[in-house]
Amino acid sequence: MKTPKKLVAAFQQEATFLIATHINPDGDAIGSSLALAEALESIGKKVFVYDRDPVPKMYHFLPGHKRFRTDIKKIMKADPVLVLLDCNAPERAALEDYRFRKSIVIDHHETEAGFGDIAWVEKHAAATGLLVQSVIRSLRIRLTKGMADNLYAAISVDTGTFRFSNTTAAVLRASAALVEAGADPNLIATQLYETWDFKKFRLFLLAMSTLEKKDGIVITQVTREMFRKTGTSAEDTENFSNFPRKIDSIRLAAMFRELGRGEWKASLRAKGDINVAQIAEMFGGGGHRNAAGYHVKADIQSAKKALVTASRKVLSSKRS
Amino acid sequence: MKTPKKLVAAFQQEATFLIATHINPDGDAIGSSLALAEALESIGKKVFVYDRDPVPKMYHFLPGHKRFRTDIKKIMKADPVLVLLDCNAPERAALEDYRFRKSIVIDHHETEAGFGDIAWVEKHAAATGLLVQSVIRSLRIRLTKGMADNLYAAISVDTGTFRFSNTTAAVLRASAALVEAGADPNLIATQLYETWDFKKFRLFLLAMSTLEKKDGIVITQVTREMFRKTGTSAEDTENFSNFPRKIDSIRLAAMFRELGRGEWKASLRAKGDINVAQIAEMFGGGGHRNAAGYHVKADIQSAKKALVTASRKVLSSKRS
Repeated sequence: MKTPKKLVAAFQQEATFLIATHINPDGDAIGSSLALAEALESIGKKVFVYDRDPVPKMYHFLPGHKRFRTDIKKIMKADPVLVLLDCNAPERAALEDYRFRKSIVIDHHETEAGFGDIAWVEKHAAATGLLVQSVIRSLRIRLTKGMADNLYAAISVDTGTFRFSNTTAAVLRASAALVEAGADPNLIATQLYETWDFKKFRLFLLAMSTLEKKDGIVITQVTREMFRKTGTSAEDTENFSNFPRKIDSIRLAAMFRELGRGEWKASLRAKGDINVAQIAEMFGGGGHRNAAGYHVKADIQSAKKALVTASRKVLSSKRS
Repeated sequence: MKTPKKLVAAFQQEATFLIATHINPDGDAIGSSLALAEALESIGKKVFVYDRDPVPKMYHFLPGHKRFRTDIKKIMKADPVLVLLDCNAPERAALEDYRFRKSIVIDHHETEAGFGDIAWVEKHAAATGLLVQSVIRSLRIRLTKGMADNLYAAISVDTGTFRFSNTTAAVLRASAALVEAGADPNLIATQLYETWDFKKFRLFLLAMSTLEKKDGIVITQVTREMFRKTGTSAEDTENFSNFPRKIDSIRLAAMFRELGRGEWKASLRAKGDINVAQIAEMFGGGGHRNAAGYHVKADIQSAKKALVTASRKVLSSKRS
């Protein structure tokens, strides 16, 4: 993986940059943006960092997270070069209504929009953080602890801290260089995975105790009563639907969360090569192959039954 | 970290080895043993691999796991050199009744017994697997995929796949070399973390529902009654003690597992910079900074109380 020369030249020649990333930013988007911003500033550039949405609380440990701005109109007055990170189309960053005199794209997503005067899209890169690390190296900028922590977090999120199949030797070596520059793997993992409050833990146990299993499908449910009992809310269920994937024999994990009387949000998680978006679409929802969801108005027993019936079709077609 | 020359010489000069590791073997113990066994055989040595206890089911994906033997008396007739891995006292491997003409120790535990004609104990090494990898390199043996998968699993288990504070740049670089040699990070992570059977999942919920929290210490317990109810056994509790570390405000997670009437095995897991080996030693046990354990004969309430009192001392000294 080598940084394109044109990209390096653009960073050297231009003076003012707007680093922007996708809406609902995740760890790779945020960490990559903050690391690149710090690096460019260290060589005298003026840098703005933009996202339409706020940085989620779980990423508030990232150095510099407060510099994310939302006042795009004001930023535009500085006539910056756009640097689009972790996405490759301006609408993914809610920037489709703005024009830039020059635009740079650094991304690793499958679908490529063809946008950007200089576009570096590495589909097989595990994280945009790895591309940014390469850019920083090409610009001969010394990694600070701040850049290293941000990039390590970026890579951690997109590789499940080196558990997903995108974990290559190069990913591990790049991460080693970040640790040498001061990144703290334990601190980052703790922040990413170990900051549940006790209320959330209690909710988790209540939710998991509802687990039912049938034909490779597991279903859990979270009711409004559980939220009340534990003093929690919907955002506390983040990641719950993944947990039952631990069970060896399952292929699909579903969680029903109660929105109102007889109204549920279903979250589907695949294990292995199942397309759960296909199932969600049968109920008017959607999503990705691995994670999808839909809304349903029904009593919980009927909702579960309908899901099992629909899932069976998809699961059995996969088996053949 | 450099393999001692005497150690390399012993492996080169001797012909017959017994690789033995601690009772209730974990991933580091098993992976290290199997990797070293394959390596020594590749240079023409006769190698036996012994553990008093069977390899837990969750490690049956490790290449060569079936070569673990329990018939120690028969093995002794071959007059092997003892290679004690991932522990440093023969009683940890249930070998205190046997005499060896030569003994080698390769370990990374805090507490050192002083046993072994050649002892290489690196307290700060994240895993015994890293020491074995170094031995294999020093012997100029090329890593096979089998050795690489075993060593990668060993390191994964003892670093929580690169989440614990023992994750250094050197650990990541060593792991990169293993991936280059054929280790499969995704396969290993799936096997380690996503192959719970449903009985284990039920046991997990029962155990977690016992959770008590006090002054940054959480305690859970697993009773023989729970094993009976769910049709599980001790090996199914693997990794349970780590789970409560998810809770943000805690610094120490302890799990008591019932061995017999009024007899318990305590497992301690640190969160942050707490040395739990220090606590375990107060009760005649031992282990690492991050993970340690001890046996106790007492009713559960007294056992918990004693632990909380001992832990408070260590936690408060850390705070100052």
